[in-house]
Amino acid sequence: MIDPVIQPVILAGGNGTRLWPLSRPSHPKQFARILGEESLFQAAARRLAAPGFAAPIVVTRSTFRFLATGQLAEAGIDPGPVLLEPEGRDTGPAVLAAALSAAETAPGRLLLVCPSDHAIAAHEAFHAAVRAGAAAAEAGTLVTFGVPPDRPETAYGYLELAAPAETGAPPTPLPLRRFVEKPDAATAARLAASGRHLWNSGIFLFRADAIRTAFAEHAPEILAAVAEALAAATPDLGFLRLAPGPWARAPARSLDYAVMEHAANLAVVPLAAPWSDLGSWDAVARAMTPGPGASGNAETGPVEAVDCRGSLLRAEDESQVLVGIGLRELVVVAMRDAVLVADRHAGAAMRDAVARLEARGLPQAHSSPRCHRPWGWYETLALGPRFQVKRIMVEPGGQLSLQSHVHRAEHWVVVAGTARVTLDGTARLLPENESIYVAPGAVHRLENPGKLALHLVEVQTGPYLGEDDITRYADVYSRG
Amino acid sequence: MIDPVIQPVILAGGNGTRLWPLSRPSHPKQFARILGEESLFQAAARRLAAPGFAAPIVVTRSTFRFLATGQLAEAGIDPGPVLLEPEGRDTGPAVLAAALSAAETAPGRLLLVCPSDHAIAAHEAFHAAVRAGAAAAEAGTLVTFGVPPDRPETAYGYLELAAPAETGAPPTPLPLRRFVEKPDAATAARLAASGRHLWNSGIFLFRADAIRTAFAEHAPEILAAVAEALAAATPDLGFLRLAPGPWARAPARSLDYAVMEHAANLAVVPLAAPWSDLGSWDAVARAMTPGPGASGNAETGPVEAVDCRGSLLRAEDESQVLVGIGLRELVVVAMRDAVLVADRHAGAAMRDAVARLEARGLPQAHSSPRCHRPWGWYETLALGPRFQVKRIMVEPGGQLSLQSHVHRAEHWVVVAGTARVTLDGTARLLPENESIYVAPGAVHRLENPGKLALHLVEVQTGPYLGEDDITRYADVYSRG
Repeated sequence: MIDPVIQPVILAGGNGTRLWPLSRPSHPKQFARILGEESLFQAAARRLAAPGFAAPIVVTRSTFRFLATGQLAEAGIDPGPVLLEPEGRDTGPAVLAAALSAAETAPGRLLLVCPSDHAIAAHEAFHAAVRAGAAAAEAGTLVTFGVPPDRPETAYGYLELAAPAETGAPPTPLPLRRFVEKPDAATAARLAASGRHLWNSGIFLFRADAIRTAFAEHAPEILAAVAEALAAATPDLGFLRLAPGPWARAPARSLDYAVMEHAANLAVVPLAAPWSDLGSWDAVARAMTPGPGASGNAETGPVEAVDCRGSLLRAEDESQVLVGIGLRELVVVAMRDAVLVADRHAGAAMRDAVARLEARGLPQAHSSPRCHRPWGWYETLALGPRFQVKRIMVEPGGQLSLQSHVHRAEHWVVVAGTARVTLDGTARLLPENESIYVAPGAVHRLENPGKLALHLVEVQTGPYLGEDDITRYADVYSRG
Repeated sequence: MIDPVIQPVILAGGNGTRLWPLSRPSHPKQFARILGEESLFQAAARRLAAPGFAAPIVVTRSTFRFLATGQLAEAGIDPGPVLLEPEGRDTGPAVLAAALSAAETAPGRLLLVCPSDHAIAAHEAFHAAVRAGAAAAEAGTLVTFGVPPDRPETAYGYLELAAPAETGAPPTPLPLRRFVEKPDAATAARLAASGRHLWNSGIFLFRADAIRTAFAEHAPEILAAVAEALAAATPDLGFLRLAPGPWARAPARSLDYAVMEHAANLAVVPLAAPWSDLGSWDAVARAMTPGPGASGNAETGPVEAVDCRGSLLRAEDESQVLVGIGLRELVVVAMRDAVLVADRHAGAAMRDAVARLEARGLPQAHSSPRCHRPWGWYETLALGPRFQVKRIMVEPGGQLSLQSHVHRAEHWVVVAGTARVTLDGTARLLPENESIYVAPGAVHRLENPGKLALHLVEVQTGPYLGEDDITRYADVYSRG
């Protein structure tokens, strides 16, 4: 038991493409099922759903809000406050917003700041490290967590200790001399062998008022903007929406860069657990095939690998089989709308590749096939001349806006569950196996009044099928 | 002008998987669009649709008959007789069946036998070589065509000349000393440098009665079986269906092995044209990136290649983007239901990989997403619990059988064209944008009475969605 209760802060606002095509701006890495059945965000929340921890504060982007709460609900984890960033401003402002919010009710509350897109294999070791840092944090120290390196990694920043850490000792806070930026290969080899350098895990433990003080000292312009954004924040369907104007004035800086690298009251607790930032497909492959010099392959989904070594083969769609023959150190990720085949060690080119897709106007650069909405999700199955077929899932109690379309007709077939369809003012129940036709111009609404998920197939026909051919008359989710 | 008129025989019965996933037993290589907009079969037919050639005799498997005639119609080429093999017995019986069929009306007719799954880049050189062989063939010689090698290829058989061929000379028949089997690397190097060895193209020119005589002499058991299969053949909707019983008794042997390697009256005409048997993805990549030592990539469809060399990247579906990063000498073929990533030089393992898929019961091992039927085609867009979504195309005048299903309901939405739907005895027209519901047990028929292709989306719902839940009451295509 940790005493006093620790307040987790889960940072879930990232939107990178280093794990494209699984991670895309519309559905980023932390919400993807990279390792196992749960998303990384769900795994992070589960790691913190333990005795001694309060319900987590989640900081995420406005556009991810239903994704985040939907995934927590799916995992059976109650969220604490959910703070919505109008736009990404890196981790500094995000952490500070959570800290100021927590400080309103309990200035001395211990905050455990965790990224939501990393992997930590051992919950026990993680909890032991957190417990070991609690007293120092209580006393006002800014506690970081450092992972003893098992290889000369150039992709991570390092934490330099004043003296070598004892291996095998129970975790205890050690004086932190300085932060070391991601090193080159020669430097990494030296750091990994020194016994005095740990990987910077991006996890922090401190009092809410202590980090506020650090911002006041080292990044007052961030403090001013974030305090204003929080003061002017608006509650919205259970979320707290930070005010866009002041938020946009907060300099976009990481927590390390904004305050930690300048602070003096620092300590580091060794975190002796298999850890990865999953910052590239190479890192994911490593996390999926542990052990030094592993020549095995990591396989997900319907995969057949013949004479492959050191490769990651992921078939994300059960209906798409992936065959690899004679592959060496490759990453292959097959999805319904996008396929990546890359040298494991060519991660740096990923950004360039996705930028090229963006420049070509391909939606795969930024959007996932499944679009999450407050009421559930939809997925395009096929798009052809004059027609589009979608799968739609409406959660129990969910309802789409009252709407109409100028250019398209919609045919809905109920596959599972029961729909309530309002058509030109008249509501009717549509059970499994029945269908209904919505003519162009008809004012309609789709709801799931039942206790089971509602699955439909929608066939749209017409000369123009864009999402923007929609007139909304009423929306319980306050969308425009 | 070639005189007399030559009768082409197109062999289109192969069903290999060396170009999986594009080539599958249900939709093999010759019918796939491997190079350019036309299938290899269409390209072969177009090569022969020239002055001096009769409409081609097509020999194919019974299961490919509508695929073959559909592709000829699409290409605007009238077929001659279409002979249907009840099962594949290699090229010997197939060629002989065509020869005996042609000999019934014109024993001295010149036959030009061509595989339908090879590539010949230069029509002019091909026609010149055929013209050069015509007189010898008229005189009773069995004429083969040999391609001057530009590399020591181990994947091809060779034709050994009695004396070195003059390079640059107009094509002329030369005495053929012997057939050489696919060589090992050292032998291939010697053969390619000898000036006396040409690649065996698998193309032949001979009189119908001359090849009959050769079979009588060297493979009388094939002649007996094939003659009987032809005598007992049944005309069926414009096809000539060879009799299965005698056909099954014909030994499965290639034309080379059955007669050519034993015959004495042989000649070879050099075919100085870029030629490939497209027998592996490596060969396809070579055909798509001509020139010695090409380090470029061959790309098809929505592909983005970053720092790739010597690789073949094919995205077969417009809605699935393929990204390659840092690839060297790889083949990547992405389809809606299957993705192949293979070392270009690992073609030999393809058979093994597909066999493994077959052993796992995966339909991708043998079936393509688009299923061709006499009335058009259908394609599964999505298959989930209790539902399946299909795209259906019915050709003008096409009609599905009068049928019913026990377990599934069907919802049809007309996307383009006009359908005539018969439901429990009543027919009605269903224009674009309308839909109809077919309840389980309802006796129904779908037809396209119009002049334009009919495109529908079908949503099936029910506990069992197998193709075998069908009771047929009447079928214009005489299916069971």
